[in-house]
Amino acid sequence: MPTLEDVAAAAQRIKGRVHRTPIMTSTSVTKSTHHDVVVFKCENLQRTGSFKIRGATNAIMKQLENQPHTKDFVTHSSGNHGQAIALAAKLSNCNAHIVVPENAPKVKIDGIRGYDGQVVFCRPTLEDRIRTCETVLSAIESSFFIHPFDNDDVIAGQGTVGLELMEQTDNSLDAVVVPVGGGGLASGVAIAVKGMNPRTLVFAAEPEMADDTFRSFQLGKRVATHRPGLPNSIADGLLTLNSDRTFGILRSNLDGVLRVSETEIQKAMHIVLERCKIVIEPSAAVGVAAVLACPEALARCKRVGIILCGGNVDVAKISQLAKL
Amino acid sequence: MPTLEDVAAAAQRIKGRVHRTPIMTSTSVTKSTHHDVVVFKCENLQRTGSFKIRGATNAIMKQLENQPHTKDFVTHSSGNHGQAIALAAKLSNCNAHIVVPENAPKVKIDGIRGYDGQVVFCRPTLEDRIRTCETVLSAIESSFFIHPFDNDDVIAGQGTVGLELMEQTDNSLDAVVVPVGGGGLASGVAIAVKGMNPRTLVFAAEPEMADDTFRSFQLGKRVATHRPGLPNSIADGLLTLNSDRTFGILRSNLDGVLRVSETEIQKAMHIVLERCKIVIEPSAAVGVAAVLACPEALARCKRVGIILCGGNVDVAKISQLAKL
Repeated sequence: MPTLEDVAAAAQRIKGRVHRTPIMTSTSVTKSTHHDVVVFKCENLQRTGSFKIRGATNAIMKQLENQPHTKDFVTHSSGNHGQAIALAAKLSNCNAHIVVPENAPKVKIDGIRGYDGQVVFCRPTLEDRIRTCETVLSAIESSFFIHPFDNDDVIAGQGTVGLELMEQTDNSLDAVVVPVGGGGLASGVAIAVKGMNPRTLVFAAEPEMADDTFRSFQLGKRVATHRPGLPNSIADGLLTLNSDRTFGILRSNLDGVLRVSETEIQKAMHIVLERCKIVIEPSAAVGVAAVLACPEALARCKRVGIILCGGNVDVAKISQLAKL
Repeated sequence: MPTLEDVAAAAQRIKGRVHRTPIMTSTSVTKSTHHDVVVFKCENLQRTGSFKIRGATNAIMKQLENQPHTKDFVTHSSGNHGQAIALAAKLSNCNAHIVVPENAPKVKIDGIRGYDGQVVFCRPTLEDRIRTCETVLSAIESSFFIHPFDNDDVIAGQGTVGLELMEQTDNSLDAVVVPVGGGGLASGVAIAVKGMNPRTLVFAAEPEMADDTFRSFQLGKRVATHRPGLPNSIADGLLTLNSDRTFGILRSNLDGVLRVSETEIQKAMHIVLERCKIVIEPSAAVGVAAVLACPEALARCKRVGIILCGGNVDVAKISQLAKL
């Protein structure tokens, strides 16, 4: 399990290649809660539009420290991790090969190619995704696979979001709320926040429509499937299931899992666009929705931080995704 | 005509009541131009969602310095100035009376009332707007009228946007582009920027559909009407004509007026939402559009600043306003 020291080492390693994103407060969002202040950590303003560049950069740079001859990095992603590996590889003068389902939106594919990443199409099944990665890895000598979240260096890199947030708020937050999908961000942030201040509560937030983390906490062991017919949330970055690795970290570090409805996610997107004037993706709205909709969980918290994990959303769909 | 000293005095006066808004750069916007860097001054992140709070606060505080017994401020506005006067008056423990056309969007009326401003409806004609203001002013003893832009203290207050931008960029910009409607912001910014660095070019940007400033510059005297059938731009904050006061300042200080089409405004909104992850209103997109669409005017400029004047846009319409 990565430690606060691993997160701090990641922060040193990736410094200069990723933004130290700003924090932001909003009088009107704070007024909609019973807290004294609500602080946003703006990873939507991060390079590539999400926190994913942190873990990607840390994992690639660490691999190059251990194996300086590595020139090719491989991953599978239909979302933000693909762009992140593409840019992180480019910044290390390496090649990126991103396995992408053939039905992925053009905007994602353009994003990867915009950072000079090679797009390798696969059929839209988990099996073909893995098989295609293996084919690429065996075809390119000393190429290296970086999983989107089931990787300690990726987790330590994502944890730098939490480290920075605690630094930027003088370790004073009573609670931090972080969206959870596969759990790379949530587990890294939990390690960093608890390491910086063990009294700060850490809650993961997830859609009711993709609530495997919540159910895993209830059961006391990892639930390896979604409910029948699900997931079907607009928070498309949070549809992935935890791995054993991330669930293990979350179980040891989280104070709870908050669930929000699709309507609550849409309302949260609306309030952030309208009042804070920043663009967030639905996955980031999940954290905001949890703070607005779950006051009892945060009843005694005066100062609350929310990780806005990304801002990659199709402009043509923003109004629809943020309808009241 | 206000001077740099008036702008500096305004900056001191309003300090603590308005945000010192951040500047922001975007690799992808800069790459779409031939400049070394494009810097955004983010007044969309200002209190009330636009720069208008600066001029409103300066004018109200200055009036209270001169006439401490003033308790009531009056203005007419169907847009950002109304909310700004409402908040600025509230922060000085005074009352605001905002004359608003009866067909104004509910969101604007809610905004004014959200800052405890009194909304006074009038018919949607210029004559009734002025008559209603006069009625309110004569009904309330020692009440004071603050025009949205035809007022030296308002202009000096808006100029603090330019002063801050120059401070935040170490006076190093080769050009500043500022949207122009009535001209309060543009004239204040021109005074501040030229005062800080006479070598920095200042361009106003306006929609082709509301190009009175451009035509006034061509003619060498103020054009007091729009073209027949116009204005009809999505940049609803820029439909107002210059006054003699603002045109006089602009004529002495501007290096040119850049015009952009409705399509260019929409594309600029799209790129800022998609790449910079911040919400701007169409009026703010006009400045971005001018930099993207008028490269010849800025041919020798390496470092270019753009004033993003506001972010008050109906979330339900964002996707439509920013369509490609």
